[in-house]
Amino acid sequence: MEHPLPECPIARFLTVLDGPWATLIVRELLTGPKRFTELRAALPGISPKTLSSRLRRFVLIGLVTRTAYPEVPPRVEYRLTPAGTRLQVVFDAMAAWAEQDLPRTGSARGADR
Amino acid sequence: MEHPLPECPIARFLTVLDGPWATLIVRELLTGPKRFTELRAALPGISPKTLSSRLRRFVLIGLVTRTAYPEVPPRVEYRLTPAGTRLQVVFDAMAAWAEQDLPRTGSARGADR
Repeated sequence: MEHPLPECPIARFLTVLDGPWATLIVRELLTGPKRFTELRAALPGISPKTLSSRLRRFVLIGLVTRTAYPEVPPRVEYRLTPAGTRLQVVFDAMAAWAEQDLPRTGSARGADR
Repeated sequence: MEHPLPECPIARFLTVLDGPWATLIVRELLTGPKRFTELRAALPGISPKTLSSRLRRFVLIGLVTRTAYPEVPPRVEYRLTPAGTRLQVVFDAMAAWAEQDLPRTGSARGADR
């Protein structure tokens, strides 16, 4: 990276998981290594261009590895590194908050409690 | 909300904190109630329009309250509800991950461990 990342760890975190697609890609990879086509199928609406640029960036910063298997047809797999896998704690906290405070009806349950 | 939110809690979470500005606004409010001008000053680059639309949305879903004090000049304060305050756990997890795995140099430290 040309310039250092922000000092604030939350701002730094947001340079990696900066929006829904990046977060949803990691959510899928947290369930195990995936091929490009598997990721596309799991994330309806994502464009191949967005998916490949996000994956390229994740590989660049060491969050994901890309493994090409010498098979015919060629098989390419994306897998979280140990650093990527440690994001599980963040995802568990996100899910727990949403389960408790954001029911499917859309209003934060604990607005008054 | 017209239609129910996604079933997946992570996807639901992302309907609230769907990007950097939303996340950074909550980061500021987690340090205590703030006025509009204080939030703008703390978030260089955010436009008044983005800030007010995010805050309006947070109030709509019960994450934030807006209190107008009958003073001259009028004073308006934004404050997290109990549900909003419970996001602290998620922010602590984000910060801990970034401190451990995303140093300011920009590459995930634990890429190989």
